[in-house]
Amino acid sequence: MHTISQYQKFFKEYLGSQTIDQEPKNLYEPIQYILALGGKRMRPVLTLMTAEIFDTVYTEALPAAMAVEVFHNFSLVHDDIMDAAPLRRGHETVHKKWDLNTGILSGDAMLILAYQYFENYEPVIFRELAKVFSKTALEVCEGQQWDVDFENRDDVTIPEYLKMIEYKTAVLVAAAMKMGAIIAGASEECAIAIYKFGLYLGIAFQLQDDYLDAFGDPETFGKQIGGDIIENKKTYLYLKACEFSSPEEANQLFHLFSVQPDDATDKIHAVKEIFIASGASGATLQAIQEYTFKAFATLDTINISDSKKEILKTFGQNLMDRKV
Amino acid sequence: MHTISQYQKFFKEYLGSQTIDQEPKNLYEPIQYILALGGKRMRPVLTLMTAEIFDTVYTEALPAAMAVEVFHNFSLVHDDIMDAAPLRRGHETVHKKWDLNTGILSGDAMLILAYQYFENYEPVIFRELAKVFSKTALEVCEGQQWDVDFENRDDVTIPEYLKMIEYKTAVLVAAAMKMGAIIAGASEECAIAIYKFGLYLGIAFQLQDDYLDAFGDPETFGKQIGGDIIENKKTYLYLKACEFSSPEEANQLFHLFSVQPDDATDKIHAVKEIFIASGASGATLQAIQEYTFKAFATLDTINISDSKKEILKTFGQNLMDRKV
Repeated sequence: MHTISQYQKFFKEYLGSQTIDQEPKNLYEPIQYILALGGKRMRPVLTLMTAEIFDTVYTEALPAAMAVEVFHNFSLVHDDIMDAAPLRRGHETVHKKWDLNTGILSGDAMLILAYQYFENYEPVIFRELAKVFSKTALEVCEGQQWDVDFENRDDVTIPEYLKMIEYKTAVLVAAAMKMGAIIAGASEECAIAIYKFGLYLGIAFQLQDDYLDAFGDPETFGKQIGGDIIENKKTYLYLKACEFSSPEEANQLFHLFSVQPDDATDKIHAVKEIFIASGASGATLQAIQEYTFKAFATLDTINISDSKKEILKTFGQNLMDRKV
Repeated sequence: MHTISQYQKFFKEYLGSQTIDQEPKNLYEPIQYILALGGKRMRPVLTLMTAEIFDTVYTEALPAAMAVEVFHNFSLVHDDIMDAAPLRRGHETVHKKWDLNTGILSGDAMLILAYQYFENYEPVIFRELAKVFSKTALEVCEGQQWDVDFENRDDVTIPEYLKMIEYKTAVLVAAAMKMGAIIAGASEECAIAIYKFGLYLGIAFQLQDDYLDAFGDPETFGKQIGGDIIENKKTYLYLKACEFSSPEEANQLFHLFSVQPDDATDKIHAVKEIFIASGASGATLQAIQEYTFKAFATLDTINISDSKKEILKTFGQNLMDRKV
């Protein structure tokens, strides 16, 4: 086994070795651009790591890890169009730097490129990987659609919200790990268990994202604190605050989430006060911990060494302790 | 073997038997909508037909035929966004009937759904089909990108144009047939030959489309005659007219293709005059015939009965004699 930063390095080297600068330039340059923007590469690292957890050298898992990362970036390119986002990781989004058509078309090409990486595997593994991948990719689309739908609804429930983030975010983390297990020829039982681990971890990760968006350290968070509040996004914090509030407080929150003032400082402050006073922020932290524990509990059902379980727990713990 | 209208009927029944009305509704309803708009179903029919040409019952090829049709419709949904097209087969396009985000996202889901249809095949066939499919799908994206790029260029050559329509249109026709051959377990040699047949036929088909857009019968063509001329599209007719014209005539054509008058009647008339007088319309008809003959010639290299060759020739002939 290697360290997380070693896996990141291995993946970065593999990514750098791939030829994507083909013709037509206007199709492939945006793909190179978005893939080079970086990020933590959490998903491909999990694929490599899981392959080694199940006793197969990480190099075997590099093409699948690449498929996962290319798919993740495809979803970012198309989501950024749908969210009209101007920036991604501090740089212009593809549809801003180029245009709408380029964003759509190079996104499409990335989805296909992701499938092509599975061609590095022989038929039985290829089919298994592509099956997990298609199921997951479709769920990510469904999650994105729920997210879009929720914007126009005032009656979103906590279970609905959890289902949405499970589909939009967690299933890809889970599938990234399951693919590592498939490549390593792990038992079906192990593959299912590691998928569950990834799923719970992915949900905890997204809840943490919701939390940090409001309560992260401006110094380290990287994004603008309160972005979700400015956008009136119904996150876990908001839904929990509604649940815990008196009718008057809920009304105040509802009002705050119906406006978009030019200077959002007061709004952000007022909303965060309600998040804290209502107990929503505490409940969110608790939910993050619960899902992390659930993830760790599934590890006990897997027949791998304690030291490997520790590596996965450390990965999970680092993810939850993150400030970015 | 069956008749074309029988294959159309078989495919229509299979399409109707597929459950696509899942949740979330806003993701799957547009998919059902576009798939129900109809069309000639030329590509899936070719998949079914080719399977039977190589002695396998068409039912085996239904899922692959479906993948081809779903992919074709995915490309229509995204292309209609890029072309800002309000109508498709006489009905509102997906992004018009719903919105941009719905068009992007349900298109993405269709691309994934197409891959899922290959899961009906066992690993070796699955991998072969998915490989042909990915290569083809990427080429279709590249063709679309060339098409977009050509709009802003005044120096597009005939070979470049032919390459563009080969990628944007012909490779999918070719791949649809190759998939039928793969499912039937035809030899690599036969699969390559039938792919070539489809490729030449696809190019002829697209050139025919260019021709009918200007010279089709308004009664039967279905679309507005002169649509490409109104849009200043540099089709084969236009490029050939430039090639054959004197500098003065070319200048006149160039001028006509730099304006978009509210009433395009005079413009369409003037351009068609040049297309005819320059010999471009004749050259286009000749190119259609040449590519059709090229397609037919590849049939002679395939070891199938003469009656089966006749069926394929009749299909090709019908396609070229079409008025729609």
